[in-house]
Amino acid sequence: MSIIVCKFGGTSLANPERVLRAARRLVDYRQAGHEVVAVVSAMGKTTDDLVALAEAVSPKPPLREMDMLLATGEQQSMAVMAMAIQGLGQRAVSMTGRQAGIITTAAYSKAQIDQIKCERVTDALAKDEIVIVAGFQGVTRKGDITTLGRGGSDTTAVALAAALHADLCEIYSDVDGVYTADPRKVPRAHKLERLSYKEMLEIAAAGSGVLALRAVEFARRYQVPVSCRSAFNDNPGTIISAYKEDPMEQAVVSSVTYDNSEAKITIRDVPDNVGIAAQVFSAIAKVGANVDMIVQNVSEDGHTDMSFTTPIKELDLIEPVLKAQVKALGAREYGIDRDIAKISIIGAGMKANPGVAAKMFKVLADNGVNIGMISTSAIRVSVTVRSENIERALTSLHTAFGLDADEEYEETQLTAAELAAKAQKGR
Amino acid sequence: MSIIVCKFGGTSLANPERVLRAARRLVDYRQAGHEVVAVVSAMGKTTDDLVALAEAVSPKPPLREMDMLLATGEQQSMAVMAMAIQGLGQRAVSMTGRQAGIITTAAYSKAQIDQIKCERVTDALAKDEIVIVAGFQGVTRKGDITTLGRGGSDTTAVALAAALHADLCEIYSDVDGVYTADPRKVPRAHKLERLSYKEMLEIAAAGSGVLALRAVEFARRYQVPVSCRSAFNDNPGTIISAYKEDPMEQAVVSSVTYDNSEAKITIRDVPDNVGIAAQVFSAIAKVGANVDMIVQNVSEDGHTDMSFTTPIKELDLIEPVLKAQVKALGAREYGIDRDIAKISIIGAGMKANPGVAAKMFKVLADNGVNIGMISTSAIRVSVTVRSENIERALTSLHTAFGLDADEEYEETQLTAAELAAKAQKGR
Repeated sequence: MSIIVCKFGGTSLANPERVLRAARRLVDYRQAGHEVVAVVSAMGKTTDDLVALAEAVSPKPPLREMDMLLATGEQQSMAVMAMAIQGLGQRAVSMTGRQAGIITTAAYSKAQIDQIKCERVTDALAKDEIVIVAGFQGVTRKGDITTLGRGGSDTTAVALAAALHADLCEIYSDVDGVYTADPRKVPRAHKLERLSYKEMLEIAAAGSGVLALRAVEFARRYQVPVSCRSAFNDNPGTIISAYKEDPMEQAVVSSVTYDNSEAKITIRDVPDNVGIAAQVFSAIAKVGANVDMIVQNVSEDGHTDMSFTTPIKELDLIEPVLKAQVKALGAREYGIDRDIAKISIIGAGMKANPGVAAKMFKVLADNGVNIGMISTSAIRVSVTVRSENIERALTSLHTAFGLDADEEYEETQLTAAELAAKAQKGR
Repeated sequence: MSIIVCKFGGTSLANPERVLRAARRLVDYRQAGHEVVAVVSAMGKTTDDLVALAEAVSPKPPLREMDMLLATGEQQSMAVMAMAIQGLGQRAVSMTGRQAGIITTAAYSKAQIDQIKCERVTDALAKDEIVIVAGFQGVTRKGDITTLGRGGSDTTAVALAAALHADLCEIYSDVDGVYTADPRKVPRAHKLERLSYKEMLEIAAAGSGVLALRAVEFARRYQVPVSCRSAFNDNPGTIISAYKEDPMEQAVVSSVTYDNSEAKITIRDVPDNVGIAAQVFSAIAKVGANVDMIVQNVSEDGHTDMSFTTPIKELDLIEPVLKAQVKALGAREYGIDRDIAKISIIGAGMKANPGVAAKMFKVLADNGVNIGMISTSAIRVSVTVRSENIERALTSLHTAFGLDADEEYEETQLTAAELAAKAQKGR
C-alpha cells in the first residue's frame, strides 16, 4: 500500500464527463489498495471568467479580494469531484486549502507555502476516504485566503506529496508527458520516459507548460517522484526523479523547447560606468517584474547596449522604469521587440560533451536562422530568434541532436463525445 | 453614528452594474457617518447553475459537498462587492461565514446559527472598513462549511444585526417593500409603511417572498428593526418593528396573500381511532417534509377524511409515507390535488374585530369563489381555493377590506440600460 497524490488541471475537469473520468481513476487507485489524495484546479475556463467578472467591477481589483474570488474556482472543483467519487460508491471528502492545513505567507496572488499541517488529511485517509484538496490556495496564519500564483496547483500537489511522504505525485493534464519538443511544432517529437529534476527544471524554465517550475523545485528539494501524464488516456507518462544519468545511454540533448511569451528590451548607448547594470536591474526588481536573458556588450567609445528579455505581460510594469532609467543614466533610448522567441536545448548529457553550443549555432546557421541573444547553463543553451523562425529552429535542432521519432506524433486526446461513449460502455 | 446591516439578494447583484449600484449605496452610507456591514447572496442565477453542475456528476449529491459547492456563490459575491467598493475609493473587506464568526450546527443544507463571534467584524468596522459578509453560510465548530437553507441570507443579515446591536437591518430586493397584496395580481395593492413582527411573521408564513420567515423570527426575538426595500430605487421601504398597534388607526386587515406552491393531500375513509393523526404526521415528520394546513372531519360511520397541504416539491418525500400509512391504517386511498392555492388575510387589527373570518368567507362566496380548507390564527385567516380563482379572490378581498390604493401599481424596477445610464451620470 502506498500514498499517491494525483493533480488534475482545469482542462482535465472542464465538464462533468471529464470530472467523472478523473473520479473513476481515483476510485480504481483506491480499490487497488492505495491511499489517494487528489489536488484539483478550477474547472475549464472558470478562472478566466472570474477574472473578467472582477475587472468588470474594478479597474484594478485589490489582491486580497481577487484571491478570495479565485479560490472559489478550486472549491467548486473539489466539491464536484467529491460528489462524483461518492456517486461511484467510494468514500470521499473535499478540503479547502485551509482545511488541508496549507499555511502560506500573506503575499496575496503569489503566496508561498510556509507549512503544511496535514493531520486532517491523514485522519481522512485513515478513515478510508479519498481526500480532494483545492489546489492553488492556502490560508495565512491570520485566516485570510491566499492563492499561490502561476503553477499553484502543481505546487500544492508536490508540496502535499512531500508532506505526506507520498510514493508518487501524478500531474494529469491534456498532454501525455514531457516531449523532446512541442509535438504541435515538431511532428517527430517523442515522449521522454524519464528525466532528472535538473533537466526538468531547465525544461520548465525554458517555457514548457507541462509542469510548473515552482513545483519542480519543490519536487527536487523534497525528492518527490513526479509523473506527468494525460488525463485522457492510460499511456505511461514521463517520470521525473533523482535518477542518475548514465552517460553511455543518455542522449546529449533530451529536449528542444521554445518560449514566445517574452519580449526583448534594449537600452542603447548607456555610458559604461561601474554599477550601471545593478542600478537598472534593481529598479526593475523593485516593481516586481521578471528578467530572463541579459546581454551586454561594451563598445569602444565607452558606451554600451544592454539587452534583456522579460514577459510581454510585464511590459506595463517595466516601461515607466525604463523611461526613468534612460534619463537617469544618460542613455540614448530604449526599444522593445515583441517579435522574438527563445529556443533552448536541454540535456544533462551536455555537461560531458563540449561543443554542444557550437553545434547548436551551426545547425541554426545552416538552416538560415539568425541568432540574437545567447545564454547558457551547465545543461542548457538558449538563444533568441525571430518569431517566424520558431518551427524551422525547433525541427532542425530536433533532427540534428538525434531526437526524431520514427513516426509522427498523433493527437490522442478524446473528444467529449468519445469520452461519453466510453463512459456508457462502463469505462 | 449608527450601525446599519444591508442585505442584497441575488437579483440585486445579478450583473456588474447592479453590484456597482449596491456598492455606491454602501459608500454613501459610510460617508454619511454610519458603520456599514453588507450581507450578500450569490449573484443572479449562480446557485441554480451550481446545483445543475452537482446533479450532472451525481444523482444525489452528498449534502456536505453540496454546501461546500454552494458556499462559493456567496464568496464570489462578497469578493466582487469588496472590489467594487474599493474601486469607489472606500475601504472594504470581505469575510466568509467562517471569517465573520458565524458558527452553525452541522446540519448540512439547513444549518442553524448557534453563535456569532463577530470580533473580526467589529475590528474591521473600527478600522473604517465596510465589511462584506457572505450570506447563507457558516461553519461548524469542527471547521466544516455549512449553508443555512431557504432564506439563509436574510437570516445571516438579521442575526448579524442582532449580534452587532445594529440600529437597522435593510433587506434589499427587487420589490419596494411589503404590499397589501402582490401587485402583479392586484393592481390596486399599495405598499405598507410599517408592520409589527407578528404581522410580518404571518405574511412571510403565508407565502410572501419579500422576507424569509426564519429571518422575521430572528428579528422578533432580538427586536431588530428591519426595512424591506428596493435595490433599484430610493423609495422608502416597509419597516418591520415592535411598534404598538393603535386600533383607532390600524386597518383591520393589512395584507392579502396567496401561495400556490402547495398541494392538498387527502387520505380517505380512515378508521377514526385514537392516535391516528399523531401516527400519520409523525411518519411524515420523520422524512423531513413540512405540513401546513390540517383539516379532519369525523363522519357518522366512524370513518374520517384527513386533509393537509404540503409543498409540491416535497411530494416525492411524502408519497412513500402515504402509501405505507394508507395500508397501515386501513384507509381507502389517498389523493393529491396540485391545483389549489392558499389565500390569507392578515392583520393585527383583526384580534379586536370579531367577524373578520365570516366577512372573508362572504366576500369570496359573493364573488363565486368556492372555499376548500380553512385555518386561522389570532391575526390570520387562510383558506384554500382553486388555482384559477387566485386573482378573483385576492382582488375582491383587497377591495372589501379597504386596502385599494387610489392609483394602480407601476413597475419601478430599472432595466440594466437605465441603470448604466444613471451610473454614467455619476450619481
